[in-house]
Amino acid sequence: MTTVLALETSDIRFPTSTSLDGSDAMNLDPDYSTAYVRIVTDAADGHEGHGFVFTIGRGNDVQVAAIQALSAHLVGRNVEDLLDNMGATWREFVWDSQLRWLGPEKGVMHMAIGAVVNALWDLKAKRAGLPLWQLLGRMTPEQIVELIDFRYLTDALTPDEALAILRAAVPGRAEREAQLLSDGYPAYTTTPGWLGYSDEKLVRLAKEAVADGFSMIKLKVGADLHDDIRRMRLARETVGPDIRIGTDANQRWGVDEAIEWMSHLAEFDVAWIEEPTSPDDILAHAAIARGVAPIPVATGEHMANRIMFKQFLQADALQIVQIDATRVGGVNENIAILLLAAKFGVPVCPHAGGVGLCEAVQHLSMFDFVAVSATSEGRVIEFVDHLHEHFVTPVVMRGGAYQAPTAPGAGTEMHAASRAQYAFGSADSAASMLASHV
Amino acid sequence: MTTVLALETSDIRFPTSTSLDGSDAMNLDPDYSTAYVRIVTDAADGHEGHGFVFTIGRGNDVQVAAIQALSAHLVGRNVEDLLDNMGATWREFVWDSQLRWLGPEKGVMHMAIGAVVNALWDLKAKRAGLPLWQLLGRMTPEQIVELIDFRYLTDALTPDEALAILRAAVPGRAEREAQLLSDGYPAYTTTPGWLGYSDEKLVRLAKEAVADGFSMIKLKVGADLHDDIRRMRLARETVGPDIRIGTDANQRWGVDEAIEWMSHLAEFDVAWIEEPTSPDDILAHAAIARGVAPIPVATGEHMANRIMFKQFLQADALQIVQIDATRVGGVNENIAILLLAAKFGVPVCPHAGGVGLCEAVQHLSMFDFVAVSATSEGRVIEFVDHLHEHFVTPVVMRGGAYQAPTAPGAGTEMHAASRAQYAFGSADSAASMLASHV
Repeated sequence: MTTVLALETSDIRFPTSTSLDGSDAMNLDPDYSTAYVRIVTDAADGHEGHGFVFTIGRGNDVQVAAIQALSAHLVGRNVEDLLDNMGATWREFVWDSQLRWLGPEKGVMHMAIGAVVNALWDLKAKRAGLPLWQLLGRMTPEQIVELIDFRYLTDALTPDEALAILRAAVPGRAEREAQLLSDGYPAYTTTPGWLGYSDEKLVRLAKEAVADGFSMIKLKVGADLHDDIRRMRLARETVGPDIRIGTDANQRWGVDEAIEWMSHLAEFDVAWIEEPTSPDDILAHAAIARGVAPIPVATGEHMANRIMFKQFLQADALQIVQIDATRVGGVNENIAILLLAAKFGVPVCPHAGGVGLCEAVQHLSMFDFVAVSATSEGRVIEFVDHLHEHFVTPVVMRGGAYQAPTAPGAGTEMHAASRAQYAFGSADSAASMLASHV
Repeated sequence: MTTVLALETSDIRFPTSTSLDGSDAMNLDPDYSTAYVRIVTDAADGHEGHGFVFTIGRGNDVQVAAIQALSAHLVGRNVEDLLDNMGATWREFVWDSQLRWLGPEKGVMHMAIGAVVNALWDLKAKRAGLPLWQLLGRMTPEQIVELIDFRYLTDALTPDEALAILRAAVPGRAEREAQLLSDGYPAYTTTPGWLGYSDEKLVRLAKEAVADGFSMIKLKVGADLHDDIRRMRLARETVGPDIRIGTDANQRWGVDEAIEWMSHLAEFDVAWIEEPTSPDDILAHAAIARGVAPIPVATGEHMANRIMFKQFLQADALQIVQIDATRVGGVNENIAILLLAAKFGVPVCPHAGGVGLCEAVQHLSMFDFVAVSATSEGRVIEFVDHLHEHFVTPVVMRGGAYQAPTAPGAGTEMHAASRAQYAFGSADSAASMLASHV
């Protein structure tokens, strides 16, 4: 029997606001941060479970406190019980009625649960000696369905329907695994498109993206219409007609504004408009989707839980599902969302970037390819070339594609040296120094 | 000039789980708690601003950490600047882009903002020498509209429409103030209806409720259908045909289950079914509302923000709006919700109970009566006779009605002795002792 010895948390912040990497119409000066969790057991194998919530600076300490509040659920517990029954483990966290009051199933407390759940999956995958995408992709349909809490889902997706989707994808699993291992999974890049970048930098980075093999780039929009038109024209002239260009408004608009604004950008052949308005606003997204068609609406990185994704799909309020590895309740809930997307026939193009989001979310898209949707048609994972060096198993890009990870685990482990160097409040943390100047 | 000297927080928990007060189908063992905030200034008048978030136990420390994270926005600030521009103050908190990432506008961080905003309103009302409902009810329509952030609202309510609603209610303000001061505002009581109570206690408390003048009671349902049928029959036999009986499922069901379950309770003349399913599920509530009609659907106490209320109203997914004083971003956001409800002609029947929720929310209903909807027709404030003794200005009930508060402030100040006695972690805190036995 293995026992959980400790749930260790840390507040890690990178001073990204100094370079305006990550700047958009709503987030002007992010300091990319993680509320980090490390699960330590008494097993002789030395395996640890690592996970985190991505935040953009202030409040990362609150997120850490929320993760710490879950230690009573973990410390002293039997590791095999937890890991062998990940569906029950998830429900135990999410249905703690006192903690649930703080959401329910949204915001700081729900993201904390997601971080711990993801750390447990990391531990489970390391113990199995498999990368997470392969561990998940080799589970039986019945085992996968057992991971999911169908409460509030059955009006759109029943356990039987989920089973049918998963069973239909069993044939060809091995071939698709092999295909991932040889070709990887397609990506697009947001690196050229931050609002804080000059036109020259936009053009240079867009050229580099094409040279690196990406078939799609994305530009932040929504701060100033004339700037957006100029930048979109520049980008389109730079990449030519065959590279797709997505746009991302980061929740800046209301319904009428979104439709009006996009009418001025449509001529540049827009791949999608992302987060046109509040991530809570299903009905507004549905109205915007009708108003900007045929430009598809993409959203999800700030969507709180599977219940919101369900409704967006039911209402035809999005045409592209953007899951995020650390916003919802971890791997289990993201699998529910992948199944919902498959049920509705909508492609999943994950949000990534930040700190470690690329490392984490690639496993979910690859699992989806192997065992759920069984296709990568119309699907790309976001890529931002940023902060990967801090991870023990950083993403590997080749020809504009994520190369399938082969190291055991969920990709979520950060180097101990990075965790120490960027620990908020430590003497040499640059983010701490920045904060002291506010 | 007055300056904010300190934002003091405390973790206050009452060991209510020992008596099963507050038990329902989802919340079996709540320890009613507040994450408390006290704003201290250097003014000679000695006025302080008090506010809180209500929680049910575990995680109250996380909520306290979130309130503490807002101190950088307050300490050292000019009090007059903050209080004279409460719309701008609200936006400063909610649109802090780094903190917003933790929601956005939902969960722990948003509730923390609500507590601080409410504490500022408490301070503003004390400085004005008025109870909050009168302070708000005497502002001009233009001043009230200025409090509201219309981002994400204008597809349902524009500033001009809000102004028109408020201007239409200006005539008669003084008469309605006088009416409140003489008659109070109608209430209903949930005291008889907790799931953990025996049939005998249910009958006794239901009789007492009628004797006390309440015209409506509410029963928790959703754990066991046969129990619910028996308890509803008992309650109806006890109170007779003229007292309304509401039901509350506390998010227990999916769509089909809600419709099926309520078909068995309809014969007892149900005033409303409250929280039949997830508070995030607009489309499910709309389907349930169609399926259980003519029983109205009531919800809102767990709804994260004005954007969710807007959609529930747009989709006819509720027939009764239940605001909560500490779930959304405080007084400002609740005023937005009152205006949305008025626009759609839907009655507001606030959620209360817990710790201090009655004390706080009565001000909003009374303001609504004076200056927004201008009616109390079909409207009742929830009442639970519980923990009022800990407040400096506890609610006063007479004839089943909340008597209009006359003391300056927002009603949110707890006695210093209570705060000390129930401080979580202190030697003599009963909730601390309970927690140590888990």
